[in-house]
Amino acid sequence: MSDTARTTGENTTTPEPVTVTVIGLGNLGQVLARTFLDQGHKVTVWNRSQDKADDLVARGATLAATPADAVAASDLVVVCVLDYTTVRALLTPTAAALAGRVVVNLTSGTPDPARELGAWVTGQGAAYVDGAVYAIPQTVGTPEAFVLYSGDEEAFAQYRTLLETLGSAVFVGGDSGLAPVYDVALLSGMYGMFAGFFQTVAVGRAAGIEAGKATELLVRWLKEAIAALPGFAAEIDAGDYRTETSNLDINAVGLAHILTATKDLGVGVDLLAPLHTLFEQQVSEGHGAESMSRAIESLR
Amino acid sequence: MSDTARTTGENTTTPEPVTVTVIGLGNLGQVLARTFLDQGHKVTVWNRSQDKADDLVARGATLAATPADAVAASDLVVVCVLDYTTVRALLTPTAAALAGRVVVNLTSGTPDPARELGAWVTGQGAAYVDGAVYAIPQTVGTPEAFVLYSGDEEAFAQYRTLLETLGSAVFVGGDSGLAPVYDVALLSGMYGMFAGFFQTVAVGRAAGIEAGKATELLVRWLKEAIAALPGFAAEIDAGDYRTETSNLDINAVGLAHILTATKDLGVGVDLLAPLHTLFEQQVSEGHGAESMSRAIESLR
Ligand SMILES: NC(=O)c1ccc[n+]([C@@H]2O[C@H](COP(=O)([O-])OP(=O)(O)OC[C@H]3O[C@@H](n4cnc5c(N)ncnc54)[C@H](OP(=O)(O)O)[C@@H]3O)[C@@H](O)[C@H]2O)c1
Ligand SMILES: NC(=O)c1ccc[n+]([C@@H]2O[C@H](COP(=O)([O-])OP(=O)(O)OC[C@H]3O[C@@H](n4cnc5c(N)ncnc54)[C@H](OP(=O)(O)O)[C@@H]3O)[C@@H](O)[C@H]2O)c1
Repeated sequence: MSDTARTTGENTTTPEPVTVTVIGLGNLGQVLARTFLDQGHKVTVWNRSQDKADDLVARGATLAATPADAVAASDLVVVCVLDYTTVRALLTPTAAALAGRVVVNLTSGTPDPARELGAWVTGQGAAYVDGAVYAIPQTVGTPEAFVLYSGDEEAFAQYRTLLETLGSAVFVGGDSGLAPVYDVALLSGMYGMFAGFFQTVAVGRAAGIEAGKATELLVRWLKEAIAALPGFAAEIDAGDYRTETSNLDINAVGLAHILTATKDLGVGVDLLAPLHTLFEQQVSEGHGAESMSRAIESLR
Repeated sequence: MSDTARTTGENTTTPEPVTVTVIGLGNLGQVLARTFLDQGHKVTVWNRSQDKADDLVARGATLAATPADAVAASDLVVVCVLDYTTVRALLTPTAAALAGRVVVNLTSGTPDPARELGAWVTGQGAAYVDGAVYAIPQTVGTPEAFVLYSGDEEAFAQYRTLLETLGSAVFVGGDSGLAPVYDVALLSGMYGMFAGFFQTVAVGRAAGIEAGKATELLVRWLKEAIAALPGFAAEIDAGDYRTETSNLDINAVGLAHILTATKDLGVGVDLLAPLHTLFEQQVSEGHGAESMSRAIESLR
């Protein structure tokens, strides 16, 4: 690893060019490589289907013949492919070239495979950083985009400036599995919101309301309702569920009415009924006057 | 009803004072009455527990002795109490005073009771407008707040300017039950988001992450992910689920991994498993290459 690369990244706003390899040029990987090229870095790429490199090569990237050549070409190796099994399969034949490099794996995955991969990469004498990307290809590099990183903090700090160009870079801890833990947590939250969206649209449709119209108002309401979450989180962290406002009793009754009205419209309630069960359980345990956030205590 | 009241409300930014009664001075009703007072309207109030009127009387409101007196005092009668049963119980003895007035019911409820109440109010010679409030007491009157109205459109238009001071006023249709249909739909969406929040926090807690930290990132991510909803809605309205990006196959596998990782952390998956069932159903029906939004077709 060159000394130049070692000292850029931190405390500079216009970093020295970095030698960076991108393995995996799917929807996301292509945009990662293009972003690095736009910043003036020396980019090497590899993809199973070679033609996906054409545009990047036209923009100045170097196409490597094999993953091992791709790893050998740069100090920083960014990997973004389908899943962790693929990452491991691609990196195994590159083992001899890995020593001294930094591997930043932006493939989505779960905690245990991330820890195993991190241990294997470290075993080859390279530093491992796991990342979870909160952006779609279209929003990479925009102010809303962010990426969570975990694993080797020194390696992260070394390339932080470059990584910040993808979206704001948040280091969440030294355990390689932590970024994937957050990923499981945050994607769960997203899927919950999607489940709610499906209930919204299904209720609307049953009453002749277009999905677009219901969704326009839902988006407006969710943006407002999101403001309640930090307060709930504070109650959960404090373990103090006293409340003056919307308690479990009110929410259990309110949600029951919603489920009944939904069924009356001929729409299923499978996506929301389990939340009502949590509320009821807390109420039956005598916590009806406490905050709705206490439902977490029944989620086991 | 005075001619002045008939002609204010529309097309003016500083409306003539309106005579308005607020029945129900709970957390929300008090703020409604205070907002009307702040705008210089002539406000009469009534609440079962009289002391909740003290502050409003000090600010210039008139306390009515009975609901019938309260109704008789104003052209516009805003009701905001616990539920529709309470609204009906309070208004029944006021029947003789109702003729010619406009009743705007901001109590939360479901479609059928709203239609029944609307029919009864109309039967007394009054106009009925049902409203669903998307604000908490602290946000009434702020730019984020909005209120959906349905029922008598002329009556709504007459008082629109006054109603806009509570939050932006959106008229959704002539059927009194429509604002409550939207309410069921939008609150379902909110509860879905809350269910997702509980999964996020539970996963985080199991890995030693504070609820506050996970929630800070969740809020950031949800604000970004919300941007996907209008696109899904457009696919649903068009019944055209072709997609180039995140299809049902990918989401079914991704969500399955999340559920497994969640269980591995010792956290229950009851709140999210039903969404996975919808995805699987669509995949098994041969729609794996189509958009995730197609899951709505399995929500029956
Ligand atoms: N797209 C997003 O919005 C987004 C956002 C956050 C995270 N992610 C994550 O980023 C990763 C990549 O996503 P993407 O959207 O770029 O996916 P994609 O467009 O489907 O691309 C998949 C990539 O993996 C490669 N690949 C698959 N199987 C392979 C194998 N057996 N051997 C070698 N290469 C293989 C593909 O190569 P070929 O081109 O040869 O098929 C392609 O480069 C995923 O883990 C995804 O969850 C994506
Ligand atoms: N607060 C919010 O953020 C919010 C937001 C949107 C919609 N809403 C809806 O607005 C309505 C009122 O909410 P709120 O927060 O103001 O509730 P609240 O603080 O609990 O107040 C309830 C009101 O209903 C009255 N009431 C209850 N039972 C009664 C009875 N049998 N006879 C006469 N009056 C009775 C109460 O009178 P006493 O004072 O005598 O008990 C009080 O005025 C509800 O439908 C709620 O869902 C509230």
